[in-house]
Amino acid sequence: MNFEYSDKVQGLLQRLKNFIAEEVIPAEQTYYEQLEQDRWGEPSVMETLKRRAKEAGLWNLFLPDSEHGAGLTNLEYAPLAEEMGRVLFSSEVFNCSAPDTGNMEVLAQYGSPEQQARWLKPLLEGEIRSAFAMTEPKVASSDATNIETEIVRDGEDYVINGHKFYISGAMNHRCQIMIVMGKTAPDSEDRYRQQSQILVPMNTPGVKVIRPMTVFGYDDAPEGHAEIIFDNVRVPRENLILGEGRGFEIAQGRLGPGRIHHCMRLIGQAQRALEAMSRRAEQREVFGRPMIKQGSVREDIARSACEIEQARLLTLKAADQMDRCGNKAARDLIAMIKVVAPQMACNVIDRAIQIHGAAGLGQDFHLARAYSYARTIRLADGPDQVHMMQLGRNLAAAYAAQED
Amino acid sequence: MNFEYSDKVQGLLQRLKNFIAEEVIPAEQTYYEQLEQDRWGEPSVMETLKRRAKEAGLWNLFLPDSEHGAGLTNLEYAPLAEEMGRVLFSSEVFNCSAPDTGNMEVLAQYGSPEQQARWLKPLLEGEIRSAFAMTEPKVASSDATNIETEIVRDGEDYVINGHKFYISGAMNHRCQIMIVMGKTAPDSEDRYRQQSQILVPMNTPGVKVIRPMTVFGYDDAPEGHAEIIFDNVRVPRENLILGEGRGFEIAQGRLGPGRIHHCMRLIGQAQRALEAMSRRAEQREVFGRPMIKQGSVREDIARSACEIEQARLLTLKAADQMDRCGNKAARDLIAMIKVVAPQMACNVIDRAIQIHGAAGLGQDFHLARAYSYARTIRLADGPDQVHMMQLGRNLAAAYAAQED
Amino acid sequence: MNFEYSDKVQGLLQRLKNFIAEEVIPAEQTYYEQLEQDRWGEPSVMETLKRRAKEAGLWNLFLPDSEHGAGLTNLEYAPLAEEMGRVLFSSEVFNCSAPDTGNMEVLAQYGSPEQQARWLKPLLEGEIRSAFAMTEPKVASSDATNIETEIVRDGEDYVINGHKFYISGAMNHRCQIMIVMGKTAPDSEDRYRQQSQILVPMNTPGVKVIRPMTVFGYDDAPEGHAEIIFDNVRVPRENLILGEGRGFEIAQGRLGPGRIHHCMRLIGQAQRALEAMSRRAEQREVFGRPMIKQGSVREDIARSACEIEQARLLTLKAADQMDRCGNKAARDLIAMIKVVAPQMACNVIDRAIQIHGAAGLGQDFHLARAYSYARTIRLADGPDQVHMMQLGRNLAAAYAAQED
Amino acid sequence: MNFEYSDKVQGLLQRLKNFIAEEVIPAEQTYYEQLEQDRWGEPSVMETLKRRAKEAGLWNLFLPDSEHGAGLTNLEYAPLAEEMGRVLFSSEVFNCSAPDTGNMEVLAQYGSPEQQARWLKPLLEGEIRSAFAMTEPKVASSDATNIETEIVRDGEDYVINGHKFYISGAMNHRCQIMIVMGKTAPDSEDRYRQQSQILVPMNTPGVKVIRPMTVFGYDDAPEGHAEIIFDNVRVPRENLILGEGRGFEIAQGRLGPGRIHHCMRLIGQAQRALEAMSRRAEQREVFGRPMIKQGSVREDIARSACEIEQARLLTLKAADQMDRCGNKAARDLIAMIKVVAPQMACNVIDRAIQIHGAAGLGQDFHLARAYSYARTIRLADGPDQVHMMQLGRNLAAAYAAQED
Repeated sequence: MNFEYSDKVQGLLQRLKNFIAEEVIPAEQTYYEQLEQDRWGEPSVMETLKRRAKEAGLWNLFLPDSEHGAGLTNLEYAPLAEEMGRVLFSSEVFNCSAPDTGNMEVLAQYGSPEQQARWLKPLLEGEIRSAFAMTEPKVASSDATNIETEIVRDGEDYVINGHKFYISGAMNHRCQIMIVMGKTAPDSEDRYRQQSQILVPMNTPGVKVIRPMTVFGYDDAPEGHAEIIFDNVRVPRENLILGEGRGFEIAQGRLGPGRIHHCMRLIGQAQRALEAMSRRAEQREVFGRPMIKQGSVREDIARSACEIEQARLLTLKAADQMDRCGNKAARDLIAMIKVVAPQMACNVIDRAIQIHGAAGLGQDFHLARAYSYARTIRLADGPDQVHMMQLGRNLAAAYAAQED
Repeated sequence: MNFEYSDKVQGLLQRLKNFIAEEVIPAEQTYYEQLEQDRWGEPSVMETLKRRAKEAGLWNLFLPDSEHGAGLTNLEYAPLAEEMGRVLFSSEVFNCSAPDTGNMEVLAQYGSPEQQARWLKPLLEGEIRSAFAMTEPKVASSDATNIETEIVRDGEDYVINGHKFYISGAMNHRCQIMIVMGKTAPDSEDRYRQQSQILVPMNTPGVKVIRPMTVFGYDDAPEGHAEIIFDNVRVPRENLILGEGRGFEIAQGRLGPGRIHHCMRLIGQAQRALEAMSRRAEQREVFGRPMIKQGSVREDIARSACEIEQARLLTLKAADQMDRCGNKAARDLIAMIKVVAPQMACNVIDRAIQIHGAAGLGQDFHLARAYSYARTIRLADGPDQVHMMQLGRNLAAAYAAQED
Repeated sequence: MNFEYSDKVQGLLQRLKNFIAEEVIPAEQTYYEQLEQDRWGEPSVMETLKRRAKEAGLWNLFLPDSEHGAGLTNLEYAPLAEEMGRVLFSSEVFNCSAPDTGNMEVLAQYGSPEQQARWLKPLLEGEIRSAFAMTEPKVASSDATNIETEIVRDGEDYVINGHKFYISGAMNHRCQIMIVMGKTAPDSEDRYRQQSQILVPMNTPGVKVIRPMTVFGYDDAPEGHAEIIFDNVRVPRENLILGEGRGFEIAQGRLGPGRIHHCMRLIGQAQRALEAMSRRAEQREVFGRPMIKQGSVREDIARSACEIEQARLLTLKAADQMDRCGNKAARDLIAMIKVVAPQMACNVIDRAIQIHGAAGLGQDFHLARAYSYARTIRLADGPDQVHMMQLGRNLAAAYAAQED
Repeated sequence: MNFEYSDKVQGLLQRLKNFIAEEVIPAEQTYYEQLEQDRWGEPSVMETLKRRAKEAGLWNLFLPDSEHGAGLTNLEYAPLAEEMGRVLFSSEVFNCSAPDTGNMEVLAQYGSPEQQARWLKPLLEGEIRSAFAMTEPKVASSDATNIETEIVRDGEDYVINGHKFYISGAMNHRCQIMIVMGKTAPDSEDRYRQQSQILVPMNTPGVKVIRPMTVFGYDDAPEGHAEIIFDNVRVPRENLILGEGRGFEIAQGRLGPGRIHHCMRLIGQAQRALEAMSRRAEQREVFGRPMIKQGSVREDIARSACEIEQARLLTLKAADQMDRCGNKAARDLIAMIKVVAPQMACNVIDRAIQIHGAAGLGQDFHLARAYSYARTIRLADGPDQVHMMQLGRNLAAAYAAQED
C-alpha cells in the first residue's frame, strides 16, 4: 500500500501543469472571445494549443493502447484527468475530451480496420470531433432496454429512425461522426442483445439537428448538447460496430474508463473551487474581519477538503482495481465513484458559490459553470439512484452470503 | 389557532388562479417568443395581460396601504404571492414583482409628495419599472457598513460615485428609476447612520450600464441583473429619500415584507416542482415499472411535501407576526424564513430535476430556471450564514436569560 | 388563519407550567432516588404528585371525550403535550402517559360496558397502568399483516400463543392489563380482517415476562420494555374488543392522536434541548471567548430553532385537521409529522449533546436520555421509511390526477 | 500508488481474523456473563484469551517500537485495528486497547527508566491497566489551556488538586496507574507550557473515585468512565513525565496514533454494521417481499459502503503520511479523519439500527452499543467542530498562499 504517485506520473503531471499554466491559461480570454464570434465553430486558438500540446508529447494521454496512445494505465491517467478537469476546455487541448475519448476507445477496441482508418485516425489526430447518441427524450434512457431508436437492415444498408437529445458535442461544426445506439432486434427475448451501435456521419441525409439543449442557462458551446431527429437515415452496413446485438456489450465496455475520467475531472473542479473559496475567505472582510475568521466558513473549507480527498482516493482505487482486475471486478467501485464524486463536487462548488456571494453565480468566476457541469454528471450515464440500486443489491447479496 | 385561509383570501386566491390559468398560461409561449426578439424590451403581451389584470381588480395586491393598494395584510397577501410564484413572470402581470414592490413601499412610506407624484404614481400604474442598487462587487454587501458608493453634497445637488452589480431589473428598457444606497457620511461614528438612499433616474449622465450579469448562465431577461458604474452622477438634493443618514433605517423597513414575498414565491416554485415530479414519477417507466414504484422516488416526494408544508406554515406565521406586532417583533421569524425557504426550494427543485433526468436541466421544464432563482435568493439580502449568525445570537441570549 | 393559542389553551398551559415548576421539578430528585430502590415499582412521590394534579384539575387532559376526560380537542391538547414532554416522567403525573392514553381511548371508544367498568375506570383514576402488545421479534411488525401471535377460540375462551417484545410499560408492577394484537383468522383473504385485539390481565397464567429490553443501554424504568411469551394464555371471550377481525381497524383509530402526542412531546424535548444548548453556549468559554461567539454554535442554535418551530406548526396543523375533518382526511399530515418530528428531535438533541461535550452523553443532563427516546420514536408505530412510502404514493397519485 | 495491503499485513490480518473467530467470538457470551457478576472486575475468560493471544504472537501489535512491540508501522497496524474494532472488547485480548496503548506509547517515548520499569513493563505484559485523566467537568477541556487541575511542587513531592470526569478505564479494579494532565505553571505567559503530565497510582490517598459516568445508558464496564476528585494527592517528584511544562507537548505526541486507532476501530464497527444490515435486509420480509427489494434499503447500504470505503482510505493515507513524514506533516490528514470517521460511523450504524427495527436499539445486537461508542468519539480528543476550525484555518492559509 502506497499513496504516492509514481515518478513517471509525477513527471507527466508536472509537465501538464506547466503547459496549462504557460499556454492554456494565457489563452483563456482569447478562447472565449473567439467563441463569442462563432458559438458552434472552433476557436482558432484551440488549434494552436493542440499543435503545441502534440509537440510537447501531451497528446492522447487517456488512451491505454500503447500503439495509438500514451500507454498509461487508468491509475496513471487519473491524476492527469484531474489536472485537466480544473480548466474545463483544456481537455480538448490534449485530445482528451469526452465523448471523443470514449468513441476512440470503442473504435480502437471494436472497430474494423476500415472504421479505424476512416474515423479513428482523424480523431486521434484531433482533426475532427465526434458524438455518442444514446439518450432519448421519450424514455428513461438510463435503462438501455427502453431505447426506441430503430436500426433496420435494408439490403446493404441500415436505416435509422429515432429521436435523441442531449447529444453532447453534436452542435459543433467540426463534429463529423456519431456513434448511435439503437435497436436492431427490439423483440429479442434477450433484452441485452436487442441493441446495436452504428456509425452515422453527421452529414448523412435525414440527420436533423433541431436545437441546442441547455443546462441551466448554458448552451455549453462550442460542443453543445443537440436534439436530433433521425428520419430514415441510411448508412452502409459496414458502419455497424462489432455486429448486431452487441450494442449493450460495447456500452458496458466504455463506461468504466469514462467514469474514472468524469470523476477525476470533477475532483479537479472541486479542488479548484476549494482553493478559490479559501482565497476569497482570506481576502474578503465581513463585519469587520476576514471571512476566514467565521466558524461556518472554516467548516465549509474543512468539510470540502475532507470530501474531496476521500473521493479522490476512492476514484484512484477504482482505477487501480480496473487496471489490475478488469472492469467487471471493479464494477462496485466504479458504481461507488459515480455516486460519490458528482454529488461531492456539487456540494463543494455550492459552498464556494455561497462564499463568493452573488458573484459566485455569475460569469466572472468558474463556479456556476462548474456546478452546472457537476450537476449534469449526476444524471449522465444514469442517475445516482440507479447506481445505488444496483450497488446496494450487489453488496447485500455478497455480505449476506458471508458468515457473520 | 386556525389553519384555514379566510374567506376573503380564498376568494382572491381563486380569482388569481383562474386568471393565471385562463390568461397567463396561454400567453406564456408568446411571451417567450417576443422576448427572443428583444431581450431587454418588454414583450407586448405583458402590457395586454397587465391591462386585463387591472380590469379584473388583481392589481397592486402586495401593497398594504389601502389608499394606493389592495389593503391586504401580509398574511392575506402571502398565499397570493405563492400562487404568483408558480409562474415566475406572472408577478409582473399583477404589478407585484420585485424590486418594484419594495421600491413602491419605500416611496409610499418615506417618499416626499414630489417623489411620490414623480415616481410612485407611474410605478403603481405599471407604466415604468425600477431598480434598487445596493450590492457592490468589491465588498461583502450583506454588511451594509461595507458599502463604498459615495453620495456627496455639492450645492443643490448630490454627486454619486460608485460601482454596483447584480442590480436586478436595471437592464430593462422600461426601468426608469433606481433607488441607490450609498454613504453620505462614511466617517460617522454611528456606523448605521453613514448610509443614505437617493433616487437616480436611469438616464442621468454618468450612469453607465456595463453589462448584464448572469446567474447559472441565465441573463434573466427582460429584467436582468446589471453591472453599473456611477461616474460623477449628479442629481438634485430633492432626490434624497427621508434625509441624510437614514439609508440603513429605510433598508431595514423594506426587508420584512420583501422576505415574505420572496419566500412565498419560492414555496410556489417548490410546490410546482413537487407536482411536476409526482406526475413524472407516475407516467415514466424505468426497469419495467412506473418510477413511482421506486422507494427512493416516493421518499423524495414525501420529504419534499413535508419540507414545503413546514416552510409555508413558518412563512405564514412570520407574516401574521409582522401584521400583528410589527417588523421588529417578527425579526427572528423573518430571519428563520430567509434561512429555511430558499434552501428548501433548492432541495425540492433539485430532487425534481433528478427525477426528470437530463431534461430537468434544460429549457423544456421550468425546473433549472426555478433552481437558479431559488439559489439566488440564498444570497440575496445577505447569505443564509449571516442570518443564522444573528438569529443564533438573538435566540441564545433570549433563552439564556430565562430560567430552565 | 391565526397562529395564537386560544385563551382557554393559554390558561391551561400556564396552570400546567406552574404546576410543573412548583410541584414536579422539585420532586424530580426524590423520584429518581426512589426509583433506584425499586426499578419496576412506582416511586411513591408519583402518587403524591398525581393526587395533587387531580386536585388541581390537571387530569386526563388528553381525553377528548368530555364525559371521562377534559374534553379538549387535539389542537387544544397539543401544546399541553409539548409542555409535559419537556420532563419525560411528568406525563404520568397528569395521567397522560403512553401507552395508557391510547389504551384508554380504545376502551372509551370500543370497549363494552363491562370492559370499561373493569379496566377503563381504574385507568382513568390512575390506579393501574397498562400496556399494548403488538411488536414481535420474528417479523417486521410495522406491517400488521406479518403478526404471528395466534388468538384461537376455544369454547367460551380465547387461547393466545405468541412472542412479543418491546412492550412498553409491561415491566412495571402496577401494569395490570395488556391489549394484545394477534390473529383470529390468519388465513382470511382480507389481510386487514385477520387481526383482533384482546384484553389480557398481566397475571393470567402463561404470560411470561422474560426480560426488560434496553434502548441504548437504558431500561427506561419504571415502565420498561418487556419481552413476553404468551404460552397458552387463556382469557374469557368477553375480553375481545369490538369483535373478531376488527384489530386492524382499532389499531388505525388509535394511531392518529397517539402520533400527535408523541410528536408534541418530542417537540417539548427538542425545545428544552435548544434552551439548554443556548445557556451552555452563553456560559461556557472555549479558546478565550464564550462558545456563543463561535459561528458553528450559532448556526446550530439557529437551525434547531427553525426546525422546531416548523415541526410544531406542522403538528398543530395535523391536530387541527383531525379535529375538523377526521383521522382519515388528516392521514397525510399525520404521516408527515411522524416522519418529521422524531428525526427533527434527534437532530436538535444531537447538536445539544455536541455543545455540552462529554457531559452531554451522561446522566447529569437530560440529553442522552432524550435522544434515546426520540430515536425510539423513529421506529415506534413503523419506521420513517414505511410512512414515507405511503405518503409518497398517496401524494404522487393525488398530484398526478390534477392538471398542471 | 498501490491499494493492496502488503503480504506481511495480509498474513497478520488473517491470523488475527482466525484467532477472533476461533477464540474470541466463542468466548463472548462467557465474557458478558462473568461481567454481570462483577461489573468493575476483569472477567477471568479475558485472562485466558490474553494468554493465548500472547502465545500466538498477537500481542502489543500497536507499538511501533520494535524493542517492546510488534514493530509495525501505523499503516501496517491500521487494518489490524479495524479488525479488532469489529468486536469492541477484543482489543484488550491483544493488549491493544485504549487508553493503555497511548499510555504505553508515552511511557516508551518519554518515560524515565524508573517509570518504564515500574509501569510500562506490567502494562506491556497486560498485568495491569491504566487511565489518562484530562477532561474536567467545569471547563471546555478540548482547549488544553482551560485545564484547572493544579500540580504544585512541594519539596520532593507534587501535590495535585482537581476534578476530572469521563476518565475512561479508571473504574476497573485492575487499573493501577493514571497519567494526569494538570498545570504546574498556570500563570506562564506561554499558554502551551503551563501543563505537565504526572503519574498517579490509583491507590494514592486523596484519589476519590466518585461514580461511573454513563454514555447514553451504558456504564461501559469493565473499564467505565470515572468521575474523580483529586484532593491533595501527593506523589513523588519522580512521577512527573519528561519535565515541567512539557504536558502539552506530550499530549500532542500521543494524539496522532491514537486517532488512527480510534478511527480504524470505528471503521471496523461501521463495516460490521453494514454487513449486519445487509443480512437483515436479505432475510427479513416486509409488505410481502424481502426488505432488500426496497429502494431506500438499497440506498442505505450503497451509501454506507461508499462512506466506509472512503473513510478507510483516508485513514490509511493519514497513517502512511505519519509513517513517512511524521505527525506534524500529517496534521491536516489526522484532523480530517477525526472529523470524518466518527460521524461516518454514527451515520452507518444509525441506518443499520433503522433496518433492524426496535431490536436494533436493544441488547441483542451490537448496534446501539456501537452507536454509543462512535458518538463518544465525536467528542473525545475534542469535538468535531474544534478540528474543523483548525483544519479550515490551516487549509485556507495554505491555499491562499498559492497562486490560482
